[in-house]
Amino acid sequence: MSTESLALIKNSIKSINDYPLPGITFRDITSLIENGAAFAATIELFKARYNHQKIDKIVGTEARGFIFGAPLAAALGAGFVPVRKPNKLPRETIEEHYELEYGNDTLQIHKDAIKEGEKVLLIDDLLATGGTAEASVKLIQRLGGEVIEAAFVISLPDLHGEDKLSAMSIPVFSLIEYAGE
Amino acid sequence: MSTESLALIKNSIKSINDYPLPGITFRDITSLIENGAAFAATIELFKARYNHQKIDKIVGTEARGFIFGAPLAAALGAGFVPVRKPNKLPRETIEEHYELEYGNDTLQIHKDAIKEGEKVLLIDDLLATGGTAEASVKLIQRLGGEVIEAAFVISLPDLHGEDKLSAMSIPVFSLIEYAGE
Repeated sequence: MSTESLALIKNSIKSINDYPLPGITFRDITSLIENGAAFAATIELFKARYNHQKIDKIVGTEARGFIFGAPLAAALGAGFVPVRKPNKLPRETIEEHYELEYGNDTLQIHKDAIKEGEKVLLIDDLLATGGTAEASVKLIQRLGGEVIEAAFVISLPDLHGEDKLSAMSIPVFSLIEYAGE
Repeated sequence: MSTESLALIKNSIKSINDYPLPGITFRDITSLIENGAAFAATIELFKARYNHQKIDKIVGTEARGFIFGAPLAAALGAGFVPVRKPNKLPRETIEEHYELEYGNDTLQIHKDAIKEGEKVLLIDDLLATGGTAEASVKLIQRLGGEVIEAAFVISLPDLHGEDKLSAMSIPVFSLIEYAGE
């Protein structure tokens, strides 16, 4: 990957201390996407990686996953499939429940959004504990999709999200890691 | 605009009767974006229209506005600025309240997301009564941005959303109209 592009991207991500809770440093991708050059470079790096992999569908999880998944889908000519919170998708859905640090949540996908054997890339802004990504992978697999990789702009290895995905034999790729901070 | 592209896009939009309420025909853009060729054509048509207009920022409203706004921003090299429901944006925001058919809602934008004099394109999936678009335009203008146009994949002229935007001197563009149905 281009070192210059990565530096541009990393420098555009603001860190917000004690947000949303004391002791947590929030990595803010809105400052990245507001920077036209950094945003275009982000999509270019993903495109370079997946351009020749014949991906049928890109799945992005509500809502920040849409911001990176949709541009990559349009750039690759792949379909874009949103995974959403309950009661947001108009046609028939299947759903997965998953646990959060505090409480739990549900994600849904359209039942006809992915066909048996389609090659699917999962994309989201951030990999933390991996609960959202794990639920999204399950949804794709239940529809018969083959998840070729899960891609993230940022990963936080200290939170071990990659272990959850590796246990499902899903390769993980991230542009930027924040570890041991 | 290419007639072929428009036919491809229009044919990919499913109509769902009596959703979300009896008597309403819901125009479903998820069936468009799941179709890789139709989705890429949509972004290409917008890109052809705005390519030489030196747009600084594209604003998309949560969440379906992200799906069209982010790809266009990446394609144009413009910044992408999300307008979101309350408590979703990590930095300092300003907000606008607006009325819905049933009740009201609030939208927020980062205070530093748009600079005085920047050329801004507002984009969303659908123009109906125009309440969301009007609130988004107000947010952009309060930050000093110049809204050069509001663009939609679909507009429903019977609901007169364009009147709200015209009253603010905002030009409106849509790829597809469903009128008198």
